[in-house]
Amino acid sequence: MAPQTVGLLHPGEMGVAVGAVLRDRGYPLVWASAERSEDTHGRAEAAGFDDAGSISELVRRSDVILSVCPPHAALEVAASVPGFEGVFVDANAIAPATARDVAAVVEAEGAECVDGGIVGPPPREPGTTRLYLSGPAAPSVAELFAGSVVDARVVSDEVGAASAVKMAYAAWTKGTAALLLAIHDLARAEGVEQALVEEWRLSLSQLPDRLECAARSAQVKGWRWVGEMEEIASTFAAAGLPDGFHLAAADVFRASSAEPQRK
Amino acid sequence: MAPQTVGLLHPGEMGVAVGAVLRDRGYPLVWASAERSEDTHGRAEAAGFDDAGSISELVRRSDVILSVCPPHAALEVAASVPGFEGVFVDANAIAPATARDVAAVVEAEGAECVDGGIVGPPPREPGTTRLYLSGPAAPSVAELFAGSVVDARVVSDEVGAASAVKMAYAAWTKGTAALLLAIHDLARAEGVEQALVEEWRLSLSQLPDRLECAARSAQVKGWRWVGEMEEIASTFAAAGLPDGFHLAAADVFRASSAEPQRK
Repeated sequence: MAPQTVGLLHPGEMGVAVGAVLRDRGYPLVWASAERSEDTHGRAEAAGFDDAGSISELVRRSDVILSVCPPHAALEVAASVPGFEGVFVDANAIAPATARDVAAVVEAEGAECVDGGIVGPPPREPGTTRLYLSGPAAPSVAELFAGSVVDARVVSDEVGAASAVKMAYAAWTKGTAALLLAIHDLARAEGVEQALVEEWRLSLSQLPDRLECAARSAQVKGWRWVGEMEEIASTFAAAGLPDGFHLAAADVFRASSAEPQRK
Repeated sequence: MAPQTVGLLHPGEMGVAVGAVLRDRGYPLVWASAERSEDTHGRAEAAGFDDAGSISELVRRSDVILSVCPPHAALEVAASVPGFEGVFVDANAIAPATARDVAAVVEAEGAECVDGGIVGPPPREPGTTRLYLSGPAAPSVAELFAGSVVDARVVSDEVGAASAVKMAYAAWTKGTAALLLAIHDLARAEGVEQALVEEWRLSLSQLPDRLECAARSAQVKGWRWVGEMEEIASTFAAAGLPDGFHLAAADVFRASSAEPQRK
């Protein structure tokens, strides 16, 4: 039996790294260059992926389609593969309810939907990155990654569960990054930055480094995290929990990425 | 010259510990038993403080008055010492704007106001607890604690600065405790608690312990933290920063302390 062909929509840094793992395991990897940016072209070429040209050709050739994109684009990307009847894996940082919307869209076309959530950096070595999966076809997707540097874990057979793991995880990592940036802004506004940082050095000694790291990441990736924070906020609200932490975090990242000279 | 007499309003766990430090340094320590609870009586008696009986007698006998109370009561406590013309130290977890309101109230009576903020547990050994102070008379209050287990630090000569340090500090410690409790509730609501905790053990290994600690503290002290979170939220808002983190945190602590069987 020929190995399944995997179609990748649309290769950003994370998507390319995940796709490269599958290609290294022997799966033909295709992407579609139509309407993609020069950056995306460069990444896909460098990774040696096959260019299907159009999305419709990618759909025709793929057994499995992998969507790894900014959260606000997830639903639109799912709607861009009409007629696909294979396994559609949405590996985006979206709310469980959004994942269920994605499933409804692709299942209406005859595909099976697997919900995914990636925790960790673009996978290049073992132990850094988990791919949480849920939905009836989740085990078949986990199988694609068996023995690779991506630790694929099936959470449950329900679409939404893998996204819930991702939302709850990022609620802490990115929520606290935003909080720390806001606290630093507060201390500066009140003229007590020095006293605060000195207190941190005494009793919360990891915070100065964490602040620096948060500021750097927010400047580069903040624009993409705004949508992720909004997805987390709606996840909290849907569970009857306060959405204010992550709506505030969205505001912080919106402001950070609008201030490229931030230090 | 006789040592200054210190009046303590109203001796909770923190207030008693701070008062005991001053008594051990030789300052006469008085409190006022009128209208106080049995618990407060017990703590003040055990600490060996002198009972002035009424607040008016405490005012008459004190050179310095120390207010250590839940944040929502700070302004009312400041208004309870008419005619006091000594140094009034507000060491509560309140917004800089609230500290300025406290100063206006006591200064109208002829007192000098020193803004204070305590970081750390009730002081019993060196190195654990800082008392941030600000306002023109802050150095004289720092002097009272010289060489004691309370590390008293003058932040600036402006009332509000010490409170700003406290707000910015607690914004992290208690804000993240609330966030963690909310994330745990989310993971339970979505049925992914086990997957999340397992992921934490791999990549954020301190979080399971931190969650347990947050749940325990919130159950005991959450009722008092609601007011503190509201003060922090208004501190952020006054600086033009998002107040949503700590309004959400107030909701979390309100719910935690309403659920005494929480685990």
